[in-house]
Amino acid sequence: MILAVCLNPALDVTYAVTALRPGTSVRVRSVQRRAGGKGVNVASVLHQQGVAAIVTGPAGGSAGTDLTAGLDSAGIGHRFTPIAGATRQTVAVVDADDATVLLEPGPVLTNAEWTAFTTSFADLAHEADVVTMSGSLPGGVPGDAYGRLIGLAHAAGTRVILDCDGSALIEALHDAPDVVKINEHEAASTTGIETDSAEGVFAAAEELHALGAKEIVITRGAHGVAARTGQGRFASTPAGTVDGNPTGAGDAFTAGLAAAMAAGLDWPARLRRASAWAAAAVAIPTAGAIDPGVATDHETRTIVQELPA
Amino acid sequence: MILAVCLNPALDVTYAVTALRPGTSVRVRSVQRRAGGKGVNVASVLHQQGVAAIVTGPAGGSAGTDLTAGLDSAGIGHRFTPIAGATRQTVAVVDADDATVLLEPGPVLTNAEWTAFTTSFADLAHEADVVTMSGSLPGGVPGDAYGRLIGLAHAAGTRVILDCDGSALIEALHDAPDVVKINEHEAASTTGIETDSAEGVFAAAEELHALGAKEIVITRGAHGVAARTGQGRFASTPAGTVDGNPTGAGDAFTAGLAAAMAAGLDWPARLRRASAWAAAAVAIPTAGAIDPGVATDHETRTIVQELPA
Repeated sequence: MILAVCLNPALDVTYAVTALRPGTSVRVRSVQRRAGGKGVNVASVLHQQGVAAIVTGPAGGSAGTDLTAGLDSAGIGHRFTPIAGATRQTVAVVDADDATVLLEPGPVLTNAEWTAFTTSFADLAHEADVVTMSGSLPGGVPGDAYGRLIGLAHAAGTRVILDCDGSALIEALHDAPDVVKINEHEAASTTGIETDSAEGVFAAAEELHALGAKEIVITRGAHGVAARTGQGRFASTPAGTVDGNPTGAGDAFTAGLAAAMAAGLDWPARLRRASAWAAAAVAIPTAGAIDPGVATDHETRTIVQELPA
Repeated sequence: MILAVCLNPALDVTYAVTALRPGTSVRVRSVQRRAGGKGVNVASVLHQQGVAAIVTGPAGGSAGTDLTAGLDSAGIGHRFTPIAGATRQTVAVVDADDATVLLEPGPVLTNAEWTAFTTSFADLAHEADVVTMSGSLPGGVPGDAYGRLIGLAHAAGTRVILDCDGSALIEALHDAPDVVKINEHEAASTTGIETDSAEGVFAAAEELHALGAKEIVITRGAHGVAARTGQGRFASTPAGTVDGNPTGAGDAFTAGLAAAMAAGLDWPARLRRASAWAAAAVAIPTAGAIDPGVATDHETRTIVQELPA
């Protein structure tokens, strides 16, 4: 089982409107509500691909109820810790020209709620082959929240893929995450190293390694992926471009990486699967879903090269 | 007890933002959620003024849960019939310049849900001194929904104040609502009679009477109120202008009228109280609340004249 941590889940609401004109009353033609947040997307892709997954995090309020009900109806396993605050909603108002996204502030956890979550997490981690941790931290949790969870995961004998950036990442590196997955822009803003060249990307990876990350994967969009691993340094070339919506592609990458690690694949195979699932996510408009045909095709055709040490 | 019917309640959500720019991601600085809908406002004002009130209607989904929880925490009595569809939300996005309101479509009731509501309503009506019916009809209910409820209220021996317009009003008139409360614009669009003069307003009232309404009260904003009643024709002059937010003033008027009818007051006293509560609602930014000082002051000073027959 892959355990997907989602400390800041969301209820994603989409309002279809004819035209959003500020200062007017706007009739909403249709409303969609779905479970969102990066960890939810990871679990959703894994579930779609037939890989056992459980998503965990804090959830509260009626948005939290809608979130878990949505996961139930999709058949996605979850174990959320109840909190008093309300899970945030994101409202995307979509008209013919634009999407305007209203982002609610997230809830603030109490100390007792954070402790309850960590207790639940430690139990779940014992059953997990791989743990993924994705996204921003909610209010009220310690700055080194991911570091503490990594410590609990390691005590339970499982490996961690960490997908976050900025101070949440820096504070987690002390606790030696097994794999840090990050995109080139996040790598640059977190390390202060320019990542617009392959050399820069590997220099940023080296810096993250020096700070404590065991292995590092940096995604570079159309330029593929750079990985600094215990098996060596690798660079991948995408199997081709896919038209569509890149939202959620990073989460599909994390899902593919976790699935490949749980399956015991080596680094070239991990990178092929993760890159293929990311490309397959672009082909589907909704985050948390991938095109299985594109996934299979790209996994065969993505080229991974080992670079000289 | 006054029974306030709210067939199309709403969860009113207010997002405070710095600036709403279409096509961007907008951080919401604060979120407020409160029970809304015209009948909810009526019951809320009555409760604030110490008059026993129960609000009733259909409610469903997590917005319905939030709606009834909000009424519970405010201490406002309610008896909602559960429905499978989700109670609509209205999202007001407020920045320094404008308020932009996103109006979700309401739920569509099944026949069984409408029947369950009418059964519950018939029970409640036996305990009611006055029933108010306010606002638009949700999908799935018969076009003469208000007429059917008026029939049940009369069978239970209670009187009805009806505040709606258009076809929902026209179809209800056959069932002889005791008092139709409407504003001059709604009166004009419903009857096709110009209401920009006192003569026009009384002509519209006469037309509504001919169609079945027993007594008619037409509110005219700063021009006061015109009433065609069994005690004669009356016109009121407001006690003065109040600066503020007129949203919810019509519902406060209905609340004051219902309270005065339940208290056995005559028409001049009813119009003084209703006009005073409407003015007192303008003084408070939130719908469903009134300024008690303004209410007391205006009730004393509002002038009601009986017009020659």
